[in-house]
Amino acid sequence: MEQAYSVERSRTIQTKLVLPPDTNHLQTIFGGKVLAYIDEIAALAAMKHCNNIVVTASIDSVDFLAAATLGDALSLEAFVTSTGRTSMEVYVKVYSNDLLSGTSTLTTESFLTMVAVDQNGKPIPVPKVIPQTEEEKRLFETASARKEYRKNRAMIR
Amino acid sequence: MEQAYSVERSRTIQTKLVLPPDTNHLQTIFGGKVLAYIDEIAALAAMKHCNNIVVTASIDSVDFLAAATLGDALSLEAFVTSTGRTSMEVYVKVYSNDLLSGTSTLTTESFLTMVAVDQNGKPIPVPKVIPQTEEEKRLFETASARKEYRKNRAMIR
Amino acid sequence: MEQAYSVERSRTIQTKLVLPPDTNHLQTIFGGKVLAYIDEIAALAAMKHCNNIVVTASIDSVDFLAAATLGDALSLEAFVTSTGRTSMEVYVKVYSNDLLSGTSTLTTESFLTMVAVDQNGKPIPVPKVIPQTEEEKRLFETASARKEYRKNRAMIR
Amino acid sequence: MEQAYSVERSRTIQTKLVLPPDTNHLQTIFGGKVLAYIDEIAALAAMKHCNNIVVTASIDSVDFLAAATLGDALSLEAFVTSTGRTSMEVYVKVYSNDLLSGTSTLTTESFLTMVAVDQNGKPIPVPKVIPQTEEEKRLFETASARKEYRKNRAMIR
Amino acid sequence: MEQAYSVERSRTIQTKLVLPPDTNHLQTIFGGKVLAYIDEIAALAAMKHCNNIVVTASIDSVDFLAAATLGDALSLEAFVTSTGRTSMEVYVKVYSNDLLSGTSTLTTESFLTMVAVDQNGKPIPVPKVIPQTEEEKRLFETASARKEYRKNRAMIR
Amino acid sequence: MEQAYSVERSRTIQTKLVLPPDTNHLQTIFGGKVLAYIDEIAALAAMKHCNNIVVTASIDSVDFLAAATLGDALSLEAFVTSTGRTSMEVYVKVYSNDLLSGTSTLTTESFLTMVAVDQNGKPIPVPKVIPQTEEEKRLFETASARKEYRKNRAMIR
Ligand SMILES: CC(C)(COP(=O)(O)OP(=O)(O)OC[C@H]1O[C@@H](n2cnc3c(N)ncnc32)[C@H](O)[C@@H]1OP(=O)(O)O)[C@@H](O)C(=O)NCCC(=O)NCCS
Ligand SMILES: CC(C)(COP(=O)(O)OP(=O)(O)OC[C@H]1O[C@@H](n2cnc3c(N)ncnc32)[C@H](O)[C@@H]1OP(=O)(O)O)[C@@H](O)C(=O)NCCC(=O)NCCS
Ligand SMILES: CC(C)(COP(=O)(O)OP(=O)(O)OC[C@H]1O[C@@H](n2cnc3c(N)ncnc32)[C@H](O)[C@@H]1OP(=O)(O)O)[C@@H](O)C(=O)NCCC(=O)NCCS
Ligand SMILES: CC(C)(COP(=O)(O)OP(=O)(O)OC[C@H]1O[C@@H](n2cnc3c(N)ncnc32)[C@H](O)[C@@H]1OP(=O)(O)O)[C@@H](O)C(=O)NCCC(=O)NCCS
Repeated sequence: MEQAYSVERSRTIQTKLVLPPDTNHLQTIFGGKVLAYIDEIAALAAMKHCNNIVVTASIDSVDFLAAATLGDALSLEAFVTSTGRTSMEVYVKVYSNDLLSGTSTLTTESFLTMVAVDQNGKPIPVPKVIPQTEEEKRLFETASARKEYRKNRAMIR
Repeated sequence: MEQAYSVERSRTIQTKLVLPPDTNHLQTIFGGKVLAYIDEIAALAAMKHCNNIVVTASIDSVDFLAAATLGDALSLEAFVTSTGRTSMEVYVKVYSNDLLSGTSTLTTESFLTMVAVDQNGKPIPVPKVIPQTEEEKRLFETASARKEYRKNRAMIR
Repeated sequence: MEQAYSVERSRTIQTKLVLPPDTNHLQTIFGGKVLAYIDEIAALAAMKHCNNIVVTASIDSVDFLAAATLGDALSLEAFVTSTGRTSMEVYVKVYSNDLLSGTSTLTTESFLTMVAVDQNGKPIPVPKVIPQTEEEKRLFETASARKEYRKNRAMIR
Repeated sequence: MEQAYSVERSRTIQTKLVLPPDTNHLQTIFGGKVLAYIDEIAALAAMKHCNNIVVTASIDSVDFLAAATLGDALSLEAFVTSTGRTSMEVYVKVYSNDLLSGTSTLTTESFLTMVAVDQNGKPIPVPKVIPQTEEEKRLFETASARKEYRKNRAMIR
Repeated sequence: MEQAYSVERSRTIQTKLVLPPDTNHLQTIFGGKVLAYIDEIAALAAMKHCNNIVVTASIDSVDFLAAATLGDALSLEAFVTSTGRTSMEVYVKVYSNDLLSGTSTLTTESFLTMVAVDQNGKPIPVPKVIPQTEEEKRLFETASARKEYRKNRAMIR
Repeated sequence: MEQAYSVERSRTIQTKLVLPPDTNHLQTIFGGKVLAYIDEIAALAAMKHCNNIVVTASIDSVDFLAAATLGDALSLEAFVTSTGRTSMEVYVKVYSNDLLSGTSTLTTESFLTMVAVDQNGKPIPVPKVIPQTEEEKRLFETASARKEYRKNRAMIR
C-alpha cells in the first residue's frame, strides 16, 4: 500500500529579520534575497513530506507586490499542495511585518516544483499528500491545471 | 528629445564559483542561490541602463535544467531587452562551467521586470533601448507578447 | 488603562537548515550558531510583543543536550512569558529534526531577558502579557522565582 | 604519568570589528553575535589545550552590561581555567573598544564547558591544567563550586 | 606536442555590487574585500586556462587608487598573461562604476601567481598561453622581467 | 608638542578558525580570505594608533609560504612600524596552527600602508610611533627604505 501524509506534516514556518546586507539604497530588501528564502522554505517543506533529499526543478513566476524594509520581519509559510510520481508542488506565501507598527502586508506568493532525488541526483518516488482544510483542498484540486500550464509555458523568445 | 541607449550598454557578465555554503548534500547548488544571482545581475544591468535605483517587480518562471556542482563556475549574462515607461525587461542566461573538464551547460534562463524608482520608492521614467544584434532584435520584438502574457497570468489557485 | 497582550501574539517559529559553514569537523553545528539563533528569535518575539526596538539584557545558562548534524533542520519556538516594567522574559525551545528519518530531538532551551529601548538606548515601558494555555500559565507564575535567581547569581570567581 | 599544561598554553585573544550586518536599528551589536564570538574563542582555547576536537556542553548565564556600537572593536580573551575527565571549563572576557576615543568597557564575561570528543562525538580524556598567575589560581580554585552550582541549576519552570 | 591556449580562453569578467557589510564608516569598500575579489577572479581565470585546481602562490603589491562607495559596482577583468612549468601569471584590473552617474574609475590592478596542483597539493604542469592582442603581447613579453623582480624582492626588514 | 605613542599601543592579535566556506577543493584556505584578514587586522592596528578612521592605501607583495587547512586556526599579529604625516606602515604576520598537532607554521607576512582620513575621506595627520623592542626598532629603521622601494616600484607592464 502506498504511503500518504497529511499536508499538515510538511507545513513549515519561518521568520526572517531584514538586515543591512539584504537591502539596497532605499533600505528595502533585494528581490533575490526573498527568492532565496522562498526556495529554502520550499525545500524544507518538501523534505519534511518525503524525508529525502530534494532539488528545485522550477519556480513559477513571482510578483513582488510590496517592498519590505530594514528592520521588518518577513514571515514565510510553505506546504506541499500535491504530488506527482517524484515531484512535489510546494506553495509559499510571504508576508512582511512592520514590527514597530504591528502591521502585516502580503509581499508575494509562489509555487515551486521540488523533486526527490537519490545520492546520484536521480528522481525517486514520493509519498502522496492528503489535503484537509478548505485552502489545502482548493490548492490540491487546482494543482493539475497549474502542472498543465507549466508544461505549456514555452518561454516566448 | 527622449533618451535612448543601445542594449550593449546594459550588458553585464558575472562568474560565480560554487562554494560549500551554496550547496546541499549532493554538493549541488541550491536553486535559491541561483535565483539570488539572477536577481543581482538583473538589477546591475537595469541600473547600468537607467543610472538609477531599481527594484524587482517580478521574475518570470524559472526551470532548472541541470544541476551545478561544488567547484563549478556559474557564468551569468544579463541585458535590458525592452522598456516601458518606468519598467525594464531584463533577460538573464545562466551557464554552469565544469572548470576541470572545460564543458559548459545551460542551467537556466529567465526574464525579470525591474522598475526604476526615486528615493521614496515611486516609479520614474527610464530611457528607451535600441536593439542591434539579431538576438537583441528578436527579444525586443517578442517583449510585448511576454508583457501581455505576464498580465494575464492569474495565479491559478 | 494599561495595555496587555496575550502570550500568543509574541509566539514566533523558525526553521533553520544546518549548512556547512555552521558546522565543525564532526559536521555538527557550533554551539555559538545555536546561541545566535536563540537570541535572534527571542528578539523577534519581544519586538512582536512590545512593537519596539529591544536589546538583550541577559541569557540564562544553556545546556546543549544533543548535537545537530549537517542537513538537519533546527526548529525554534519563542514567546514572552512575563514582563517587568521595561523588560520581557522570553522562553526559547530548540528541537533538531533529522529530515531523512523524520525524528525530532530537544537540543536545548533557555530564558532571555529582553529590554525595550528608545532611540537612545534608554529602557521604556512594555505592555503586560496574559498567559492562556497551561504551559504559558506555569511559565508566567515561575517567572518571579527565575528573576530572583537571576539577581542572586553572582558569578562565582 | 598524566599530561598537564599551563593555563598560558590555551590563552587566546581575538579582536572583532563591529560591522553593519552585526547591528540593529540602534547600530549596537546583537547579543547573539557576541554569544557566537564567545563560543568560537572558547572552542579555540579548549582545542589549544587538548589538541582535539571539542563541542560546547554548556554556557553559563551571560549578562550584557554595555552595548557595543558600529565601528567599535570587541576584544575577547579566553583560557582554560580547570579540567574534568573529558571536560574543560573556559573563561571568556569581552571588552568593547571605542576606536575613535580609545576607551574600553567590559561588555560581558562567561564560563563555558567544552568537552573533547572523538570522531564519533564520544567524550575522551583531556590533559590537566596548571594555573600560574593570581587570576588563574583563583579561577582554578573556584571551579569546583561553579561545577556544583551548574549541576544544581535546575531550570525553574 | 605541448598544449597551448589563447589568452582569450582564460579571460574572466566579474561585476560586484558594493554592499553594506563590505564598507567602513565612510561607506567606502574595505581594501581586504577588493583583495578577496582579485584573488577569486585570478583563480577562476587560471582554472579556465589549465582546467585544474589552483592555489595562490603570491600577489604583487596593490595600490588602491580610488575608493569605491556603497552602491557602486566593481567590475573586474582577469586573464593569464604568461606561464611557467606549473605556474601562471594572472593580470587583474578593477574598475569602480558609479551606477547613478555612469562614470567609471580605475580602482587598482595587480599580478598574481597561481599554481596548478593535484589532489595532494603538489604542483603539476600547465598548458602554454598564446597572446593575440597588443595588450596581451606586451604583458606576455614583460612577464619575465616581473618574474625576475619578484625573485629579487627580498622583503626589507 | 606632537603626540607620540609606543608601538605596543597598536599591537593587535587575531585568531581565525578556517571554516568550510573559506576553503577550496583541497580544503585549503583561499589566498583572498587570508588577504582580507590581513587588511582587517592592519586597519584595526592603525585605528588603535591614531584613533581615527583609516583606509588602505596599499599592500606590499604577499607570498603564501604554506597552505592552511580546514580546521586549522590562523593567528595574525599586526602593529604600526612607522608613520608619515597622514600614513602609517603596518606590519602583519600570519601563522597557521594545526590545532590537532599543536604545530605552528609561518603562512605569510606583509606591510600595508594605512591612511587616516576625516569624514570626507581627506587625509589627516597621525601621531608618531615610538619603537621599543629590538624587532620594533629594526622595522622602524628599515621603514624609509621600504617607502623608497614602494615609490620606485613602477608596475612593469
Ligand atoms: C529536476 C531534475 C532532477 C529532473 O530530472 P529529469 O531527468 O527531467 O527527470 P524526470 O523527467 O524523471 O522528471 C522528474 C520529475 O520532475 C518533474 N520536472 C522536471 N522538470 C521540471 C520542471 N522544469 N518544472 C516542473 N517539474 C519538472 C517531472 O515532471 C517529473 O515529475 P513527476 O515524477 O512527479 O511526474 C533535473 O532536471 C535536475 O537535476 N535539474 C537541476 C535541479 C537543481 O539542481 N536545481 C537547483 C539549481 S540548478
Ligand atoms: C514594482 C512597484 C514599484 C510598482 O509599483 P506600482 O505602484 O504598481 O507602480 P505602477 O503601477 O506605476 O507600475 C510601474 C511599472 O511597474 C510595472 N509593474 C508593476 N507590477 C509589475 C509586476 N508584478 N510585473 C511586471 N511589471 C510590473 C508596471 O507595468 C509599470 O511599468 P511601466 O511604467 O513600464 O508601464 C511596487 O509594486 C513595489 O514597490 N514592489 C516591491 C518591489 C520590491 O521591493 N521588490 C523586492 C522584494 S519585495
Ligand atoms: C539592558 C540595559 C538597557 C539595562 O540598562 P540599565 O541602565 O541597567 O536599566 P535599568 O536598571 O532601568 O533596567 C532596565 C530593565 O532591565 C533589567 N535588567 C538590567 N540588567 C539585566 C540583566 N543583566 N539581566 C536581566 N535583566 C536585566 C532590569 O531589571 C530592568 O527591568 P524592569 O524594567 O522590567 O524592572 C543595559 O544594561 C544595556 O544597554 N546593556 C547592553 C545591551 C546590549 O546591547 N546587548 C547586546 C550585546 S552587548
Ligand atoms: C557534551 C556531550 C558530548 C556530553 O555527553 P555525555 O553523554 O553527557 O557524556 P558524559 O556524561 O561522559 O559527560 C562528559 C563530560 O561532559 C560534562 N557535561 C555533560 N553535560 C554537561 C553540561 N550540560 N554542562 C556542563 N558539563 C557537562 C560532564 O560533566 C563530563 O565532564 P567530565 O568528563 O569532565 O567529568 C553531549 O551532551 C553532546 O554531544 N551535546 C551536544 C554538544 C554540541 O553539539 N553542542 C553544540 C550545539 S548543539
